[in-house]
Amino acid sequence: MTARYKADTAVTSDWKTKRIMRDGKVRIGVVAPASRLEPVLADKVRQLARAHYPDRPPDIQFHPQCFLSSGHFAGDDEARAAAFLEVANDASFDALWIGRGGYGSGRIAERVMAGLTEPAGKKIYLGYSDAGALLGALYKHGFDGAVHGPMPADINRESGEVAVARALSFLVDGATDTLEPTVSPSTKTAAFNMAVFSQLLGTPLQPDLTGHILMLEDVSEHMYRIDRAMFHITSNPAVRKVAGIKLGRCSEIPPNDPDFGQSEEEVVRHWCGVSGIRYLGRADIGHDIDNKIVPFGRLRTLHNNP
Amino acid sequence: MTARYKADTAVTSDWKTKRIMRDGKVRIGVVAPASRLEPVLADKVRQLARAHYPDRPPDIQFHPQCFLSSGHFAGDDEARAAAFLEVANDASFDALWIGRGGYGSGRIAERVMAGLTEPAGKKIYLGYSDAGALLGALYKHGFDGAVHGPMPADINRESGEVAVARALSFLVDGATDTLEPTVSPSTKTAAFNMAVFSQLLGTPLQPDLTGHILMLEDVSEHMYRIDRAMFHITSNPAVRKVAGIKLGRCSEIPPNDPDFGQSEEEVVRHWCGVSGIRYLGRADIGHDIDNKIVPFGRLRTLHNNP
Repeated sequence: MTARYKADTAVTSDWKTKRIMRDGKVRIGVVAPASRLEPVLADKVRQLARAHYPDRPPDIQFHPQCFLSSGHFAGDDEARAAAFLEVANDASFDALWIGRGGYGSGRIAERVMAGLTEPAGKKIYLGYSDAGALLGALYKHGFDGAVHGPMPADINRESGEVAVARALSFLVDGATDTLEPTVSPSTKTAAFNMAVFSQLLGTPLQPDLTGHILMLEDVSEHMYRIDRAMFHITSNPAVRKVAGIKLGRCSEIPPNDPDFGQSEEEVVRHWCGVSGIRYLGRADIGHDIDNKIVPFGRLRTLHNNP
Repeated sequence: MTARYKADTAVTSDWKTKRIMRDGKVRIGVVAPASRLEPVLADKVRQLARAHYPDRPPDIQFHPQCFLSSGHFAGDDEARAAAFLEVANDASFDALWIGRGGYGSGRIAERVMAGLTEPAGKKIYLGYSDAGALLGALYKHGFDGAVHGPMPADINRESGEVAVARALSFLVDGATDTLEPTVSPSTKTAAFNMAVFSQLLGTPLQPDLTGHILMLEDVSEHMYRIDRAMFHITSNPAVRKVAGIKLGRCSEIPPNDPDFGQSEEEVVRHWCGVSGIRYLGRADIGHDIDNKIVPFGRLRTLHNNP
């Protein structure tokens, strides 16, 4: 797997420079590399953006691919990869916002990496959960704009507007109050869903997280699967070079039969102990409306809310 | 991770030599590195063995650890590892039979590998599903007796006696009619549950399967998870060196919402195509009573049914 374009990490140390701000407007392209979106969701998100920024609403373009359907996916692999590349390689977009999780980002990651061109290096890529396969791959390939954070589909959660507004505050204003508290210009960070990260290990998509604080969250997994994922993650020699692990929220855990006998924090502490990785406490991320922003790598300069 | 004892692969080319056959009896030790067994199951298995071999019933010893309970597991990690080592390192046992799957073998694999001594190299290790974490680790560490096949707990399936009797025929007689049809002295093979194998990738437990026919089966996984596991497995550079993949049965697949749009065979064909791995058709393995025997590595000399 060879990227046609490898971002020069020295070029953009300030995310503000990634934003073109033509007519004072930030331009955001939404694509769906995994599951599809309903068109009404796009309307809701644009409406929220107008309410949140009445004087300078961001220009949010939902790529038509978001609404395609092909079995499990929002269009077949070719359509999803093409839409991602169309937005990523278009210099008129400041950010590529992943519309929704589900499953499918990993399927197109190699194809996407091979098709990225120069404008892709000047963009912020925002998403989480399944999107971690693409965010991790982007970071692995030297792109410094991969960011864990809320997605348009979060608007369907109860009070989900809070999460989507947080993402917009980050994308439009670079508001520092959107960030997970660990994040700082002096700390390298990364955030992943456990199951998604586990399935990147030992593949060319696995990013080098040496010296990073690795935040992990999960949803809808039995406790034995959380344990198995942590066994897998902490057994990986490269992962053992992280600065430490912080545990995000593990939600909607189905009942274990018999009871697993340990909480998710006990499980993570156990595997950190076995592997010699530092356990650094809880992270403010998860599949919920409180999910905070975590950049892959160091925080670049951001502006406070104006 | 360093094994105290590394099997000399030149020592035992004939499984028959692994069996001591004192008084004409094969001696089998059962341990439970994952979920616990009910004592009544042990009775049923011994009864079946007596019926199957009235003149020379194998001596089947269920280690008391099989019946321990610690949350999800048949005793804590220390108890399960200790029982495994006790049987593995005891020269009076010809075979170590893993009692049941579930989850837990991977948790103790590093500890077990570090504690194996010389008699462990002269033994057959039989199991499947979660047990694959230990079988794969044994094979990785140079032990030539790891074998995929039915376990005592299979007796609880409808007509499960067929599966357990097959395992006994293999352990006692080395009967060739118990073998998956691909297995031969000239072919290197390995068999894994997809989810279990996936969670060994990129860890020190991942065995080198260069030139092997890799058989994969799964149970109770959504089709998108089968797809994700195959994405993971076929993206691993070392796995791409296998001679080919054969697909066992994928059973009890929960409904995918929306419908995934591809069968498990289409999924495996897809990922073999993407990765350049040969797809070699179906394998006669799975979570069912027809599950056949597959040695890790080449078939050593076996005797037909007497």
